[in-house]
Amino acid sequence: MNVRQMRRRALALLAPISVLLGASPALADALVDNVDGVALDKQGRVVRFTGILLTLDGKVTRLLARGDKRPERLDWRADMKGRVAIPGMIDAHGHVMDLGIRALSLDLFTTRSLAEATSRVAAFAAANPQRPWILGGGWNQEVWQLGRFPSAAELDAIVADRPVWLERADGHAGWANSAAMRAAGITAKTVAPAGGRIEKGANGQPSGVFVDGAMELITRHIPQPTPRDRNAAFLKAQEALLSAGITATADMGTKVEDWLTYRRMGDQGLLRVRIMAYAAGVDPAIAIGGTQPTPWLYADKLRMGGIKLYSDGALGSRGAWLKAPYADAPGNTGLPFLKDDQLLNLMSRGAMDGFQIAVHAIGDRANQQVLDAVDELAVTYKGDRRWRIEHAQVVDPADLPRFGRNGVIASMQPIHEASDWRMAEARLGAARLTGSYAWASMLRVGSRLAFGSDYPVENPNPFVNWATAITREDASGQPFGGWHPEERVSREQAWRAFTSDAAYAGFAEDRFGTLAPGQRADFLIVDRDPTMASPVELRQLRVLETWVGGEKVWERR
Amino acid sequence: MNVRQMRRRALALLAPISVLLGASPALADALVDNVDGVALDKQGRVVRFTGILLTLDGKVTRLLARGDKRPERLDWRADMKGRVAIPGMIDAHGHVMDLGIRALSLDLFTTRSLAEATSRVAAFAAANPQRPWILGGGWNQEVWQLGRFPSAAELDAIVADRPVWLERADGHAGWANSAAMRAAGITAKTVAPAGGRIEKGANGQPSGVFVDGAMELITRHIPQPTPRDRNAAFLKAQEALLSAGITATADMGTKVEDWLTYRRMGDQGLLRVRIMAYAAGVDPAIAIGGTQPTPWLYADKLRMGGIKLYSDGALGSRGAWLKAPYADAPGNTGLPFLKDDQLLNLMSRGAMDGFQIAVHAIGDRANQQVLDAVDELAVTYKGDRRWRIEHAQVVDPADLPRFGRNGVIASMQPIHEASDWRMAEARLGAARLTGSYAWASMLRVGSRLAFGSDYPVENPNPFVNWATAITREDASGQPFGGWHPEERVSREQAWRAFTSDAAYAGFAEDRFGTLAPGQRADFLIVDRDPTMASPVELRQLRVLETWVGGEKVWERR
Repeated sequence: MNVRQMRRRALALLAPISVLLGASPALADALVDNVDGVALDKQGRVVRFTGILLTLDGKVTRLLARGDKRPERLDWRADMKGRVAIPGMIDAHGHVMDLGIRALSLDLFTTRSLAEATSRVAAFAAANPQRPWILGGGWNQEVWQLGRFPSAAELDAIVADRPVWLERADGHAGWANSAAMRAAGITAKTVAPAGGRIEKGANGQPSGVFVDGAMELITRHIPQPTPRDRNAAFLKAQEALLSAGITATADMGTKVEDWLTYRRMGDQGLLRVRIMAYAAGVDPAIAIGGTQPTPWLYADKLRMGGIKLYSDGALGSRGAWLKAPYADAPGNTGLPFLKDDQLLNLMSRGAMDGFQIAVHAIGDRANQQVLDAVDELAVTYKGDRRWRIEHAQVVDPADLPRFGRNGVIASMQPIHEASDWRMAEARLGAARLTGSYAWASMLRVGSRLAFGSDYPVENPNPFVNWATAITREDASGQPFGGWHPEERVSREQAWRAFTSDAAYAGFAEDRFGTLAPGQRADFLIVDRDPTMASPVELRQLRVLETWVGGEKVWERR
Repeated sequence: MNVRQMRRRALALLAPISVLLGASPALADALVDNVDGVALDKQGRVVRFTGILLTLDGKVTRLLARGDKRPERLDWRADMKGRVAIPGMIDAHGHVMDLGIRALSLDLFTTRSLAEATSRVAAFAAANPQRPWILGGGWNQEVWQLGRFPSAAELDAIVADRPVWLERADGHAGWANSAAMRAAGITAKTVAPAGGRIEKGANGQPSGVFVDGAMELITRHIPQPTPRDRNAAFLKAQEALLSAGITATADMGTKVEDWLTYRRMGDQGLLRVRIMAYAAGVDPAIAIGGTQPTPWLYADKLRMGGIKLYSDGALGSRGAWLKAPYADAPGNTGLPFLKDDQLLNLMSRGAMDGFQIAVHAIGDRANQQVLDAVDELAVTYKGDRRWRIEHAQVVDPADLPRFGRNGVIASMQPIHEASDWRMAEARLGAARLTGSYAWASMLRVGSRLAFGSDYPVENPNPFVNWATAITREDASGQPFGGWHPEERVSREQAWRAFTSDAAYAGFAEDRFGTLAPGQRADFLIVDRDPTMASPVELRQLRVLETWVGGEKVWERR
C-alpha cells in the first residue's frame, strides 16, 4: 500500500470522529438557513425549502423544509433572512473570452442609429489614444433601420489614422475603415474566401463590410491580445457572468490561449464560475486533451469535454445555409462552411477520441447536414454521445422529429427569437417560420433542450432569456401574446433547460445543475421568486448573491 | 468566514485527534525503515540514518538514526532490509520531451562509424514503413573519426523515397538526405539565415549538413508530433529519468505543447517526476504564466518559473561564440545568436514579469555577453534573481570571477567534459583550456554550481556524471588522472550540485532537494553507497527503487 492509499484509509478513519466530538452528522458541516428556497427536483417538479445543508467541501447534503430539525453543531451557518434562494443558472452556449474582450472594447450594442454609433467611435478613439486598433462590436443595421450595411467612408470621417474594426451584433460580419483595409492589403481585386463575402460599393470597391469567411481577411491582421489582456478580460467576463446569476457555462469555441487563461485562473485560485469548454476545432481539442477529454479540474470548475464545429453562418448576414433561397435575396441560399464529408470527418475525428461534438447550425439546410452526419456517425459511435446542435434556429418541419433520435440535444437561445423575429420574417417569409425557434416542438419530438444566451452576441442575463422562453415576446412586449406562441415552453421546462438540462448537455449532471444531495452547492440569492413572478417581473429579477461550491463568489453592492 | 476557511479550521481541529486515537504524533504517519541511509545535511556534511519518518502527504518528518525510537503506531511502514537509501538526484539541465521523442526515434548515439550508422538507418526505415519522415539523432563525426561531415549522398543510397533528418549528438547540426532537402526546397541558391551555415560540397551544392540556425530550414518542414505522440514520448522520458534515479529535473526550453503535455499528465495523475520548466523564450512563458511564473502544481511536481534563452551554439559544430578564432578553423569565431541589446531586451522582458532567466552560453565571448547583460540588469532587478548561465563551458579566466557576482549560477554538465575533452583541445588549443569546464574554479569564485546531464544530448545517468565530476576521466578512464584535474570537485560538492543546489537553481530548495524535515520525501534505494564507492563503482551504481513524495514510482525488475 502506498502513501496515497494509506492517506485515503486514514481519512476514512477520521470521518466518524466528528461524531465523537459531538459535531453534526459526518457530512452536514454547514447550513445556509432561513431561505425562501425554490428549485426543481429530478422529476422537474417544484420543491420548496428553507435551508441547505452543505459539506465543508461545498456539496449539498440535503435541502431542509420548514419543519426539519437543524443540526445542533455546525461548522458555520449563514442566515439568509428569508430571502429567495434558487439553484445557479447554467448557460449552455456562451463565449467567455469574447465576453471579456468585448467588455474591454467599444460597445455598440445599445446604439439605435448609425449617428449614435459613429459618435461613440469618436469618443472611444479619443479616450484610447494608445490603442493600435480601435476594436468593438454590437452594431446591427436592422436595429438602426438603415436599410443597408454601413460603410468604411462613414468611419474614415471619424478615425482615419489607425485601423477600426467593428463586428456586427451576431459576430457574422465586420465593418472596417480604410486604414484597416489598407493594413490588411484589401483592394478591389481581393477575392473573398469560400464561405465569405466582401460587400462592394457601386464603384466596385470594397465598401467596408466583410461577411462570415471574409472577416478573416481583416481579423488576421489584428494584434492578438496579450496574456495580460486575457487575464483582465477573463476576470471581466467572470464578474459579468456571476453577477447575472450564471454559476456554470459552456464555452463554445475555446482556443488554446483561452484554455491557458482558464488554467492560470484555476492555478491561482481565481476561477469561480464553472466552465464546460468546447474547443474551437479538433486541433485545439487534442492539443489540450491529447487523446481524450480532460478530467474535471479545480473541484469541477473546468473541463475540456467537447469540440465546437460550424455548419453555416447566421441569418442576419444571410450566412445561414437554407434549403430554398432567402425570401429577401432571391437566388441566395447562404453558405455552407464545410462539405458533407468534411464535416463528417471532423465530427468523426473528435468522436473517436471521446469528445462531445457540438455543431453550429442556423439554416434548415445546415441543420439537415448535421442531422445527416449524426445519423451516419451514430452507427459507429455507440453509447452516450449527446450530439449537440447549436442554435438549431431554422429547421425544416420534416427534419424536426430527427432531433428526437440519436439523443440529439437542441442547444438554443431564447433571446435570439426576441432579437430576430422581425428579421427572420423578412429573411424566411411566413412559410418557413414553422420549425423556426421551435422550442416546444423540440421537446415534443423528444429532444433535450439546453438553453443559453450566446453571450456576448446577446446579454448573458438568464432571467431575460427565461421570460422570453415562456412568452416569445421581446423586451418591449412585442409581438403582444408572443411570436408563434405555440412554441413557448412552460416556466418549469425553461428552468430545467437553464439548469439540470444545461448541465446534462455538458455531461455535468452528476456534479451540478440541481440542489440534490451530492451536487455542488451552486445557488443564488435573488430579489423575487421566479416561479411566482410575472414574465415582466421575471425579466427584472435581480441577483443579490451568487454562491458556487458553497462559497459566496459575488454579492450586489 | 467562507467554506474554505472553515474547512481549514476543521482540519486544524482534526489534527490532534490522531493522538486521541493512540496513533503516532500528528505528522509522523509512515516510516521507511531499516535503510542504510546517507545524505548531506544543510551544511553539506554527510549524515547517516536508518529510517525516514514521513507524513501521509509525502513529506519528511525527520530522519532517524540507529538508536532512535520508532513510533509505536504508524499508518504504514516499509522495511528496506538494510539497503542503501540516498536523496533523489536532480538534473539541473535536461530536455524532457526531446528525451522522449528521441526514445521513439532512431538512435545513433552509440554508433562508432558511418557504416554502422547507415546500416541502422536502413534497418529503422525497414521497420517503420509508415513513418512519413525518418527522424533520429546522435551521430558525431568526431567519434566516427571521419574527418569531415557525412553527406546526403550517403543517406540517399539507403533511403531515397522519403525524407531523412538526423541530428548531431550535440543537437547543433543536422544531416539530411536529398528527399528532405527537396521537401524543404533547398537548392544551391538557398542562403543560410543569420546564426546558421549550410555545408557545401566541392560542386557548390548543399552537401546535406545544416549547422545551428540553418537547421531550421529543414526542421520547419518536419510534421509536428501529434498530442498522442507527445503523451507516449513523455511517458518514455519519465521512465528513463526515474530509472536513472532522477526525481526532479529542469526542463530547458519548454514549448506550449510540452507544457500542455505535462498538464495532461498531471491532470490524469501520471506525473511522477518533478519538472522545473524553463520556457523556450519569452512568448511561451507569458502565454503560459500570463504575468508571472505559475504556482507549484500537483504537489510540487510542476512549475513554469523561468525562461531559456540562447547566446550561442555549440563547440563541436563550431557554433560556440569565441573571443578569438577557433584553433582548428582560422578566422572563424563562431556565431552569436543575438546582438547584445536583443539579448538584454529579452532578459529584461522576462525578468520584468518575475521569471528566472537561464541563458545558454558555450563560448568565452558568449559567456562574456551574458555576464555583461547580468551586470546591467542586476542594477534594475534587485532581490533574489538567480541568473543562470547554462553550460558556461569556455570562460575567459578574466571573466571567471564575474560568476561570483550578482548570484550567477553556473549550470554545468560534467559529462560534457568527458565527451568533449579531445574535441575541445582541437577547437581551442591549449591556451584556452584554463577556464574551460572549470567546475572547481566556479566554486572558488563563489558561484553556485548546479549539475545536470543535458539529456538527451547526453545520457541522463547522474551517477556517471557524478563520477566524471570527481575524476574528469571519461568512461574508458581517459585521460588517466583526469583532464585538467585541478578542476575536479569533491564528492560532496558534486553531490550537492546534483541535489540541493540543483533545487536552489530552480527556486525549489524549500520544497525538495534534501531529506530535511518538511521536504518532499524524494529518495532512492540503490545497490551501493555512493560515498564509499570508487569512481568506477559509482559509475556502475544501479538504482533499485525511486520514491517521489513518499510514493514508490519506479522499481527495477
